[in-house]
Amino acid sequence: MATIKDVAGAAGVSVATVSRVLNDNGYVHEETRTRVTAAMEKLNYYPNEVARSLYKRESRLIGLLLPDITNPFFPQLARGVEDELQREGYRLIFGNSDEHLEKELEYLQTFKQNQVAGMIAATNYPDLAEYSGMEQPVVFLDRTPEGAPSVYSDGRTGGKIAAEEILRGNSKCITLFKGPAHLPTAQERFSGALDVLRHADVNFQIITTASFSFKDAQTSAKELFAAYPNTDGVIASNDIVAAAVLHEALQQEKRVPEDIQIIGYDDIPQSELLFPPLSTIRQPAYDMGKEAAKLLLNIIKKQPLKETAIQMPVTFIKRKTTRKGD
Amino acid sequence: MATIKDVAGAAGVSVATVSRVLNDNGYVHEETRTRVTAAMEKLNYYPNEVARSLYKRESRLIGLLLPDITNPFFPQLARGVEDELQREGYRLIFGNSDEHLEKELEYLQTFKQNQVAGMIAATNYPDLAEYSGMEQPVVFLDRTPEGAPSVYSDGRTGGKIAAEEILRGNSKCITLFKGPAHLPTAQERFSGALDVLRHADVNFQIITTASFSFKDAQTSAKELFAAYPNTDGVIASNDIVAAAVLHEALQQEKRVPEDIQIIGYDDIPQSELLFPPLSTIRQPAYDMGKEAAKLLLNIIKKQPLKETAIQMPVTFIKRKTTRKGD
Repeated sequence: MATIKDVAGAAGVSVATVSRVLNDNGYVHEETRTRVTAAMEKLNYYPNEVARSLYKRESRLIGLLLPDITNPFFPQLARGVEDELQREGYRLIFGNSDEHLEKELEYLQTFKQNQVAGMIAATNYPDLAEYSGMEQPVVFLDRTPEGAPSVYSDGRTGGKIAAEEILRGNSKCITLFKGPAHLPTAQERFSGALDVLRHADVNFQIITTASFSFKDAQTSAKELFAAYPNTDGVIASNDIVAAAVLHEALQQEKRVPEDIQIIGYDDIPQSELLFPPLSTIRQPAYDMGKEAAKLLLNIIKKQPLKETAIQMPVTFIKRKTTRKGD
Repeated sequence: MATIKDVAGAAGVSVATVSRVLNDNGYVHEETRTRVTAAMEKLNYYPNEVARSLYKRESRLIGLLLPDITNPFFPQLARGVEDELQREGYRLIFGNSDEHLEKELEYLQTFKQNQVAGMIAATNYPDLAEYSGMEQPVVFLDRTPEGAPSVYSDGRTGGKIAAEEILRGNSKCITLFKGPAHLPTAQERFSGALDVLRHADVNFQIITTASFSFKDAQTSAKELFAAYPNTDGVIASNDIVAAAVLHEALQQEKRVPEDIQIIGYDDIPQSELLFPPLSTIRQPAYDMGKEAAKLLLNIIKKQPLKETAIQMPVTFIKRKTTRKGD
């Protein structure tokens, strides 16, 4: 592998000059720069990123912290982040926190030790001193604090639309799922829906789901029909819960949407393949990831920022588990 | 933040001694080591990983290359890898190749530049000179070459079982899906199934899917019923394709499994929530990830290896889209 000395030799300049070109600091004549760059290309020279990072005290690594990549909402988000970073030559160090504080702190620590250029975090603990005390910029994603750079979608409006659609389809005995209490995003969509139901002329009941795991979704769906067999409309806390409810409803030979309407949240790719295909509230997960990466890179490059708290729109995706709006 | 000097001062030893403890090289008296470790803990000292990595020419980073994390088979695999590495203090640099050679090479290059301790790659190009020429150990995952350290599941047997189950349920006009031609894993399960069908007393036809994307799965499912409306048994190339076929069959008011049996491949978590729940061939994705990480760490630590090509078993998961075997 070619070294910096080889490049200097081939370009007929000093190692210090090559270093100035590499690190883009100090004056280098344009013609010299072109010669050095050409030599690098010819020799297939790649600077050692670790050495560069030590020297410049920065790197082209970005830390990405997610709750759990096996929750089908997050792969899209991660792809959005990665695709944007990849185009700009940045790479991801990646970890799942499982929403455990200790694991999160451990990842933050190692992100710092590896001198990441910045971080993108989907966290339930945005107010940790570890975040505010970071030298590197942090963009919060999906689960976001006040005031800090962040990208999120409008959960309250999402919940509101979900409830309105179920009412529009004329359900009279509605079950509203309340997602995990410790997840602000789950609580926002819940509150949005609750506000609408509370002012409507319908009966409704609330079931809490302990997590967004597949197993808990199945348990909650069974609980729903045992406790409230007359339910004719369900506002689920996410698409996984909605899929489990749909499964259970069909199992009990209810017709969907004739006997019971179901609406999900997220619009994960699988929801379109359910039968009937799931009506849901779409969060633009991929675009949220992309926006977060763009925002972080702009902060790293000290670009002027138009906004630092970017709210992404949610949209109702009408499929076949709700009745009206055809 | 505490420095190496602070640690040396607190432990009453030289910086060189602390460095020997940190890097685990050279002689250090046991009692001294204990004192240094205690001082590190007391001062909450974390070595700068970048500096260490430069010095030792190694790091605690592992490169993970996947085709596409949004394919629902891969998040499980990635979690298996991460959970095992995390316990051992290693971190992941992560990239999706999208099965593009150029993108893969770019990631390999940056993994090397960041001096990863090793790599885990799910690649279609295991024979690249870039892999065999790597200083760092590589473990191939899922899509694997001969002779190299690898973890994979038994695709041929998986395909064989899938076909046998469809025959056991008495389908007489079977459609066999052939996954993307460039994916050896897809071709193995296809060959396994084909061998069984070819020797059975049934009609069958083959449909090729261009990719494992959601969109292509839907297209293929529609194509299936347009071209072969009499199909009464489907062996899908993965669970996404099976879900799309199930969707289309129900759309056409076919009864599953009475009129048509469907069997998937992978057993992604979503398959249990379909209705009827999907019968499928299970690959132990999470465990495959875990085994790959274990194997890589053993190679990095120069542990004796029992085997370097680890084949994981596949199993038939009987649910409700196939008829026999109750």
